[in-house]
Amino acid sequence: MGEVSVIVVDWGTSNFRLWALEADGTIAAASDGPFGMLRLKRCDFGSVLEDSIAKIGVGPDVPAVICGMAGAAQGWCEAPYLQTPTPLDALGTGTVKVQGIDRDVHILPGIKKLSPANVMRGEETQIAGLLQRHSDFSGTVCLPGTHTKWVRVADQTIYDFETCMTGEKFAFFSKTSVLSHSMIVDGWSNVAFSEAVSEALSEPNVVPRRLFGIRAEMLIGDQSGAEARARLSGLLIGQELAAVRPYWEGQAVTLIGASALCELYLRAFDQIGVAAHALNNDAMTISGLLRAHHLQTESKNA
Amino acid sequence: MGEVSVIVVDWGTSNFRLWALEADGTIAAASDGPFGMLRLKRCDFGSVLEDSIAKIGVGPDVPAVICGMAGAAQGWCEAPYLQTPTPLDALGTGTVKVQGIDRDVHILPGIKKLSPANVMRGEETQIAGLLQRHSDFSGTVCLPGTHTKWVRVADQTIYDFETCMTGEKFAFFSKTSVLSHSMIVDGWSNVAFSEAVSEALSEPNVVPRRLFGIRAEMLIGDQSGAEARARLSGLLIGQELAAVRPYWEGQAVTLIGASALCELYLRAFDQIGVAAHALNNDAMTISGLLRAHHLQTESKNA
Repeated sequence: MGEVSVIVVDWGTSNFRLWALEADGTIAAASDGPFGMLRLKRCDFGSVLEDSIAKIGVGPDVPAVICGMAGAAQGWCEAPYLQTPTPLDALGTGTVKVQGIDRDVHILPGIKKLSPANVMRGEETQIAGLLQRHSDFSGTVCLPGTHTKWVRVADQTIYDFETCMTGEKFAFFSKTSVLSHSMIVDGWSNVAFSEAVSEALSEPNVVPRRLFGIRAEMLIGDQSGAEARARLSGLLIGQELAAVRPYWEGQAVTLIGASALCELYLRAFDQIGVAAHALNNDAMTISGLLRAHHLQTESKNA
Repeated sequence: MGEVSVIVVDWGTSNFRLWALEADGTIAAASDGPFGMLRLKRCDFGSVLEDSIAKIGVGPDVPAVICGMAGAAQGWCEAPYLQTPTPLDALGTGTVKVQGIDRDVHILPGIKKLSPANVMRGEETQIAGLLQRHSDFSGTVCLPGTHTKWVRVADQTIYDFETCMTGEKFAFFSKTSVLSHSMIVDGWSNVAFSEAVSEALSEPNVVPRRLFGIRAEMLIGDQSGAEARARLSGLLIGQELAAVRPYWEGQAVTLIGASALCELYLRAFDQIGVAAHALNNDAMTISGLLRAHHLQTESKNA
């Protein structure tokens, strides 16, 4: 392992992901686990971090920088939201230092929009990572996940964003609701997905009365469990696309997210003639955290 | 207790409700419990029914008639769906006799629509009850619940229907999703509800990006937990109304459902200038079952 100059951490609601980086950004070691905010009391965060760092053999003098829910009011140490429009360099200069511990640990702020109210914690760091690599980026970023974010970026600044709970809804409908009886866990049909995306985009208003049809088609029709699951996904993603039409119509979209999920959005975009490409999720997170670390260090030394 | 001439049962997914009726329909005794289809194996249904009947002291010669999920493929004894358009008297003539038991027990069929696929089991019996009392009824019936049904009725026949999973969605969003952190179990605000209904009806497409706003308003705004809960309900009911607009626009609506839930729909209808009234849930179920019993007995004796 080369000399580690900084520890960067994405500390979310459900998961903890840590990378030890050399000065040039090379990953020297990594660690992760299900130690998300929801599982931890405030007093647990410090030891989870130190245990993870000890496991990869990094010493106490290496600073750490964290993004995500560790900075929420109910997390480790609140890093108050910055308000839109938000220049992304403010993530670095606006970090909050965790007090009362030996290691130098900084947490990045999230971003809020006042009206209609909206918040993000974590995705802004990935967008900072995108800008670190493409400093003149301007356009729409879509970050699909439990709570998918749609973000307008220009002038290295987040101007506006929206949140759709599409991932959380898909998990509910496919695993818990009455529709779950009609699903195959790993089943999939590209045809059923594409048809459902088209159907939802052409008549988004009626999606609420199409969902139960997935169950009914299983009871009295010849729909397979794979088709049912793909149809559910297509209806929900199509409905989301209809809700955020101004973010993609006549524009290109940059996706940052888990690759399997990005594939679905790419398929939908291809179908509706929207130019889109996906960037590596972890790479953007790491770049954004490293960028914030450098800005935080510079502002301290200035 | 007067002489009991028939036992009528609404046997749903979650609950079992039984009434012992005298010849003129007077309720002599009643019983209920959480013995819904989901909790029972096929071999359990008979003993649940007999235990409940024994508890209210009714003998083995009294026939029983059942509607709901007991007649589903995964229930006690399948009573195959009748297809729309469905004359409601066919519920009585189409009952299925449970074999291999001592008591005379008949189960009512459900109703299916082929394209787009849809099914109901239980609500059709309540509509038969409505027609028993108002034989010339013609128009839209809305049966709000876990899976709200919207039904077109004319000529004593069900012509068409739609299903919206609004109740199941409300339970998920308010009790399980990230929004649940912003809810007060019994909190309510009529103003927040009405505003959300208007908002959802005027822009139903964007409801998917308004839901997370309920959480965000709690984190960075001054929304109360009571307002959050009412707003969620208003957004979902408004979104449902937008999905089934042809069922209520320019028409009167008859509601059959739990009274607290009907109150919400009545409030929304009043707001948008739709004439609506609510009928007693149990009374319609009992009337519909009794009507089916008489038709079944007549067809047997004919």
